[in-house]
Formats: sequence, structure tokens, C-alpha cells
Amino acid sequence: MDLITVRELYKHSEEYLDKEITVGGWIRSLRDSKSFGFIVVSDGTCFQTLQIVYHDNLDNFTEVSRLNVGTAIIAKGTLVATPEAKQPFEIQALSITVEGASAPDYPLQKKRHSFEYLRTISHLRPRTNTFQAVFRVRSLIAYAIHQYFQEQDFVYVHTPLITGSDCEGAGEMFQVTTLDLSNVPRTADGQVDFSQDFFSKPTNLTVSGQLNVEGYAMAFRNVYTFGPTFRAENSNTARHAAEFWMIEPEMAFADLNDNMHLAEGMLKYVIQYVLDHAPEEMNFFNQFVDKGLLDRLHNVLGSEFGRITYTEAIALLEQHNNKFDYKVSWGCDLQTEHERFLTEQLFKKPVFVTDYPKEIKAFYMKLNPDNKTVAAVDCLVPGIGEIIGGSQREDDYDKLVARMREMGLSEEDYSFYLDLRKYGSTRHAGFGLGFERCVMYLTGMSNIRDVIPFPRTVNNCDL
Amino acid sequence: MDLITVRELYKHSEEYLDKEITVGGWIRSLRDSKSFGFIVVSDGTCFQTLQIVYHDNLDNFTEVSRLNVGTAIIAKGTLVATPEAKQPFEIQALSITVEGASAPDYPLQKKRHSFEYLRTISHLRPRTNTFQAVFRVRSLIAYAIHQYFQEQDFVYVHTPLITGSDCEGAGEMFQVTTLDLSNVPRTADGQVDFSQDFFSKPTNLTVSGQLNVEGYAMAFRNVYTFGPTFRAENSNTARHAAEFWMIEPEMAFADLNDNMHLAEGMLKYVIQYVLDHAPEEMNFFNQFVDKGLLDRLHNVLGSEFGRITYTEAIALLEQHNNKFDYKVSWGCDLQTEHERFLTEQLFKKPVFVTDYPKEIKAFYMKLNPDNKTVAAVDCLVPGIGEIIGGSQREDDYDKLVARMREMGLSEEDYSFYLDLRKYGSTRHAGFGLGFERCVMYLTGMSNIRDVIPFPRTVNNCDL
Repeated sequence: MDLITVRELYKHSEEYLDKEITVGGWIRSLRDSKSFGFIVVSDGTCFQTLQIVYHDNLDNFTEVSRLNVGTAIIAKGTLVATPEAKQPFEIQALSITVEGASAPDYPLQKKRHSFEYLRTISHLRPRTNTFQAVFRVRSLIAYAIHQYFQEQDFVYVHTPLITGSDCEGAGEMFQVTTLDLSNVPRTADGQVDFSQDFFSKPTNLTVSGQLNVEGYAMAFRNVYTFGPTFRAENSNTARHAAEFWMIEPEMAFADLNDNMHLAEGMLKYVIQYVLDHAPEEMNFFNQFVDKGLLDRLHNVLGSEFGRITYTEAIALLEQHNNKFDYKVSWGCDLQTEHERFLTEQLFKKPVFVTDYPKEIKAFYMKLNPDNKTVAAVDCLVPGIGEIIGGSQREDDYDKLVARMREMGLSEEDYSFYLDLRKYGSTRHAGFGLGFERCVMYLTGMSNIRDVIPFPRTVNNCDL
Repeated sequence: MDLITVRELYKHSEEYLDKEITVGGWIRSLRDSKSFGFIVVSDGTCFQTLQIVYHDNLDNFTEVSRLNVGTAIIAKGTLVATPEAKQPFEIQALSITVEGASAPDYPLQKKRHSFEYLRTISHLRPRTNTFQAVFRVRSLIAYAIHQYFQEQDFVYVHTPLITGSDCEGAGEMFQVTTLDLSNVPRTADGQVDFSQDFFSKPTNLTVSGQLNVEGYAMAFRNVYTFGPTFRAENSNTARHAAEFWMIEPEMAFADLNDNMHLAEGMLKYVIQYVLDHAPEEMNFFNQFVDKGLLDRLHNVLGSEFGRITYTEAIALLEQHNNKFDYKVSWGCDLQTEHERFLTEQLFKKPVFVTDYPKEIKAFYMKLNPDNKTVAAVDCLVPGIGEIIGGSQREDDYDKLVARMREMGLSEEDYSFYLDLRKYGSTRHAGFGLGFERCVMYLTGMSNIRDVIPFPRTVNNCDL
């Protein structure tokens, strides 16, 4: 259909002023009086709405005046400038056609609805201002991430979702099966007979594509994943979802410094992209969702990220132990309260914390010469805490095997991973960015359920 | 690390000629003689390799001469032009450092390996010429698709992977569960007790994001998905995988013509992008994988796609029924042999087939005024057959309910989908592109296992 979008009107209004155009959209509000009325429509192509003025010269004037919020209409009319009004222009309607009515029980009336309520109608909530903004920005962030990596010739790799292995031994995975749950087949000795399952063995949903993508870094040098990941964690918090998206870049011939450089560049690139491409949405968040948002993001763009070792961070935090629920000491994992204190109070900007005790980090991280810490890095940002976790990987075959044995991991299960250390190993590093955390960080939204189109959490898999 | 990439050398060699540079990469081949040798390395950043010449003035000359294929090295030296040689330049080495050795049993020796063998080492095969080309092109296609939609302000929507519904009633889905398979809990009446499962109900892996994304089209007008999809189909063919990626655009205020326009534009855009950004890889495919590839793709770029109704197509095909294993007649589904005959023999270019009998298409497709056919469209391309399937959607509440009842679908299960016809319905249309089929089409690769980094098929979930 040849409809002019509202986005196009805002971009090039001069081309359309005083001309007859046709637009389509959904009614956000309608005010009618005896001989004329105003309709505000959103056509979903941009955050701004469009006002349509109609008069009783329309054949269907009475019908139009009774249209409900949510109705889809097609309006033909003349675009006229409105220098006195809030909006820069409006349409003087010549005809208004109803494309699809909106039943009287339409759940999105003009009043403000709570986020909790809107979660119960996840198929309709993108029609509200807040979720228009959230999900357009989510889309832009996703694209900006691709653009950042592709401009630097990183190869995008689709790592598998269904997996026979349990990366990081993270536990709490979803099983994938085609066995009949009401009648699970058994082997002679009473075990589940996985030979009858689709893949002839137990399989799970992935918790990370990292181990797989390392193999691709050893072929393409610079690679990244961007795909869904799953955790069957029984955590009913505002920050946990059972299904979320992750970005995991991996670079060969690269160390922890290269890793931090890439991560800092990425966050700044994405922030700049969103500020450039969704200014109205970002202003909306700043005004209605999170008052300090724009200042915080501009502050990030303008500053060099801090860098501190875990050991130094602990020394600093110990001086403030009276402020924490969990007291810190060398060897403990950092809690969100510590992370936020570091980045919000001490650094007042994003900060990289490096070189954590090996005991609290994954087996594949490179052992430092002190034999106590590993070349890990977390990036902490104000308002969130940890947003990125990464490391230089252990590239030495013998050290990796030794660490796996210490941790009771089977060399056979990881033989493909060990191969990468056997055939042309190089120093290499990478990190994981939780995509939803990134969206929360850039929008100021505080519940992960409100930045995922159809969120999956404990006991919740609607629609 | 400050290494110059081979891609950068090929792009701006003039900047580096006769200068001292450092490169890193993996040895593809090594020829040594008494006092000097040649090493060909790939650094993974581009298809081309780089030749390094070294002499016995190196401290580690003997060590270097014995390096195995696959070894990771860092070489410092001077880039010199080689106007007489096949390659435009080479490096005269000043030093060569071994970053990681390659064990003698390195599985990728210089000889040619079969694709079947390479599938058994999916973590190493991206180091070969063919898979370097395939997976770089796969990455470029993915990005080109995003770029195509984002340039037109389509909103990228992540539809859920874990789902409580069975879109299209496609059957053959993977179940997702955290129940203990060796001891499945039961309710009092002996049924599986899903209240103890993670989501408190049975859940599956999605077969399509379409129904969900339609809700977003009704908010943003133009949207698309790009994510994994799953089929637990017991098909051990060269075209079926259990896990694959799909692209599903959906447009509000759009009909079947808009749909075809979008699909044709997308395919041409992606082909042009890949020809522009991976000329060496595409030449390689044309030379070694599929001889007619480039001609075919250029032909697509230069031609307007054909358009024919199903009824017309059947009339044409019936004249050639002697050539088919399955004879066609009105009402039958088109098999790959028919699709390929249409596009390869009759049209000699891509063709859209529209308006299929409602009986062989999904419940949500818009009923045509003839009450016999629906506004469906398949795009058929030479060498593949169907690459895109789409439709205008039934936007009339009553007609949709009637069709669902005919097909025995529960209105309750689809109440969210029916809501979209109740509150501001508009004509809308969309399609699905199987991403792997698209990669096969653009590379000439004939087995889907060879265009997925870690393929999942019946009985196969390695790595």
C-alpha cells in the first residue's frame, strides 16, 4: 500500500506540506465536538504521533466520531503546518476509512497502566509509549552491536542452541527431549534409554556459546556470537530471565588489554548509536523512566573507563565494609552492592576489574604468573553493576588440563576444546555481554521482563 | 596485540610496502630448502593468504623449518612487492616466533579432505578454504539481512524460543523440561505433573515466531525476526536440520504484493552485498563448488522475478507430468521437482507462486474471494526450489475463527492471536526465509550440514 509513514513526515515534512497524502495508523486518542474532531494516530514507525483534524463534511462523520481507541484507520488529507501548536503539522482529513475497529473492551485505554498489568498483555503492550520506546531501542542496540563488529570485520558465528555439553558446568540447564514424558523408555538396567531420544543422547539448551566460538576464533581470528542462551535458575528477580540473548566476541592473538579495549569501544559505540538514532525515545526514558539516564550515558561517552585489579578493589572496598550487607575480603566474590559502590561511588564511571582469584572463576581462564589469580575482567557500570564478564583464555594445553583435573572436569568431554590448544594455540580473549542487561542499562528500565518482548521466567511461559 | 591483518594488507598494501610490519597467523604450508624457506599463513581475516620468506639468518631457522601445518606464528618482517609472482606481495622475515605449535597428528594436512570427514571435526573445519569461505559468507548474509531491514526502519523483534504453544500445529517439536526424566512426577490421576516443571506447564522449542511477531507488526507496522527455530523431524536429508535460523518479516497495512516486493528486494540486496563484500569467496565457490553460481546470481540481480498463480502453475506443469515422479493436479502440494522445473526450466529465474488451495496451507492465511484459495506466496529459485514462504494473513476475526474451527484449533489457545483481529486489525503480510537455505543458495553448497557451524540432525549433536 502507498502510505506515507509518520517517520517520513517528520524527516522530510517540507516535501509533503500542503499536499494530499495518505497515512495509516492506530488511534491513540479522539476528541470530537459537534462539527469537527481531532484524532491522534500512531503508525508505529516512529515515537511521534500524528494529529488528524476532520470535519462534518466527511460522509462518515458520525461513525468516525465514535471510533474507539486502538482502531486502525487510513486517512487521506492535506498536510498543513501548525506553527502555533505543540506538533509541527497536522492532517486536514478528506476521508477516513476504518481498516479495523477496536472492540469496546480494548485493554489499552488512554490512562496510564502499570508495568505489571502490561506484562499480562505482552502482545498488546508494544502499542504503549513506553514499550514503543523500549522495543525500538532494543532493535537499534542489536543492530548497533552487529555494525560495531562487522565494521571491524568480525565474523558472526551462530553457535548451537541444543548442546550435548554443559559449558562452565553451570548446571541448571533445560533438557531437550522427544521422549514421551508419560512413558519414558528404559534400558535393561533401568536407566533412561536415551538411545531412543532424537539425538540418541541427553541434550540441553546452551548456557554459552563461548567454547564453540573459540574454535572459530582459531580460524577467523575475530568472531562474535549473538544468540539466545538459557538458564533454568529458580530466581524470581528483576534481573533474571530463563531465556535471554548474549553477545560473545572472541579474538585470537589478543590479550586482556585487547579485550577491555574492545568492550569499552563497543559500549560507547552502542550508546552513541542509540542517542543518534532514537533521540525522542531516549528523552522519554530520561523524563519518565530514569531521570539521570542521559547524563549518565553522556558521562560514559566522555570518560575513559577505570581499570583496577580485584586485589586493589578489595583493599578499597574493605575501607567501606560498614556500608555492606556482605563484608568483603580477599577471595570473596563481588556482590552487586560492591560492584555498584565501586562504579557509582568510587569511580563514578564504568570500571574494569581484573585478575580475580582463580577459585571464583571458570576453569578456562588464563592463570596469571602469581598462580593465584586469573586474567579475568568484569566491566561494572553505574546503575547495573556487572554488565560484561570476560577473560583471556588459558591457551596452554598442560595448564588447562591441570586446571580441569583440579575441578573434576572430564578431558574426554572437552577434547574438542583441548584440540584448540594442541593445534596452533594462540593467546586469545573474549567476553560475554548480556543483551538484556545492556538494554536495561541504556533505557533505564529496571525489570528484565520489560525489555524482552515475551519474557520467560519461573512459572511463566505465556504467549 | 598490534598485528597488521592480511585483510588490511590487501586493502592498503601501498601503506605498508617496504616497511617493517608484524603479522600473526596459522601455517597453511611450508616449503624449506637448505638456506631459506616459504611459509604460507592464513590469519583468518580474509580469504587470501600471505607468503613469508625466511632465511638462515634467523636464530631459530632450523626450528622454523620443521614447523607443522596449523602452527600459530607471529612474524616480523618487511613487506615487499612481488610483481612477478601469483601473489602481489610477500614478507621477508626478520623474526618468526612460534605462538602455538601444531601436534604431528594435526587432522588438516595439505591434501583435500571430504566434506563428510570434515563434518567429524566441526571445530577445525573453518580452517579450510571451503569453510573459511562458507562461514564468512554466512556472516555477511546475516548482516546484509539486518542492514536491509534496518535501512527501511523495520524493528528487529526477538520472539521467544521456549513456547507453550504449537504454531501452525506443525507437530514434531522438541520438549523443554527440567523434570527428572528418570523419575517423572505424576499427578494423582497418573498424568505427568507439569506443575513441578520449570514453567508449570508443558513447553516446546518454537517452530516459528510468526504469530508472536504479528502482535509487534500491529504496534510498529514493519518488523522482522531473525532467530533460531527447531524441528524434531526425523528427516535425514541434505536439506533438513533440527536447529536452523529463520528470518520472518511482517508488515501491517500491507498485502501480498507488498510481501513479494519486500522478498524480491531482500534477495537482490543480499546477493549484491555478498558479491561486493566477498568477491574472492564467491569466485572460489564458482570455481570449486558450483560452476554456474555467479551466472545464476547475476541473472537474479538482472531480472524481475516471475509471478504466477498456483492454478496457472498447475496447468503448465500438467503438460510435463511425464517428467515427474509425482504427477501434479490441482489441489496437490508442489514437490521440489515441480518447483525446480518451474523456476529452472519454465521461468529460468526466480518465480513467485501465489494463491494456493486453502487445504494445503496454514490456517492463518487470508481466504481469497474465490473461497477456495488463500493469499499465500512461495518464492522458488533455481537450484533450490522454495526458499521463501509467506502470505497475507487473515485479518477478519470471524473468518479466522471459522477457519480455526474447521481445522479443530482451540480458540482459547490462540486468544492472543485473535485479539489482534479484535483491536485495530489491519491487512498485513509477511514471510519466512530459511536462513540456511539462503546460505546454500548463495554459496552453491549442497548439504545443510556444511553451512551450519555445528549442525544438529537426527542422532547427531556433537560438540
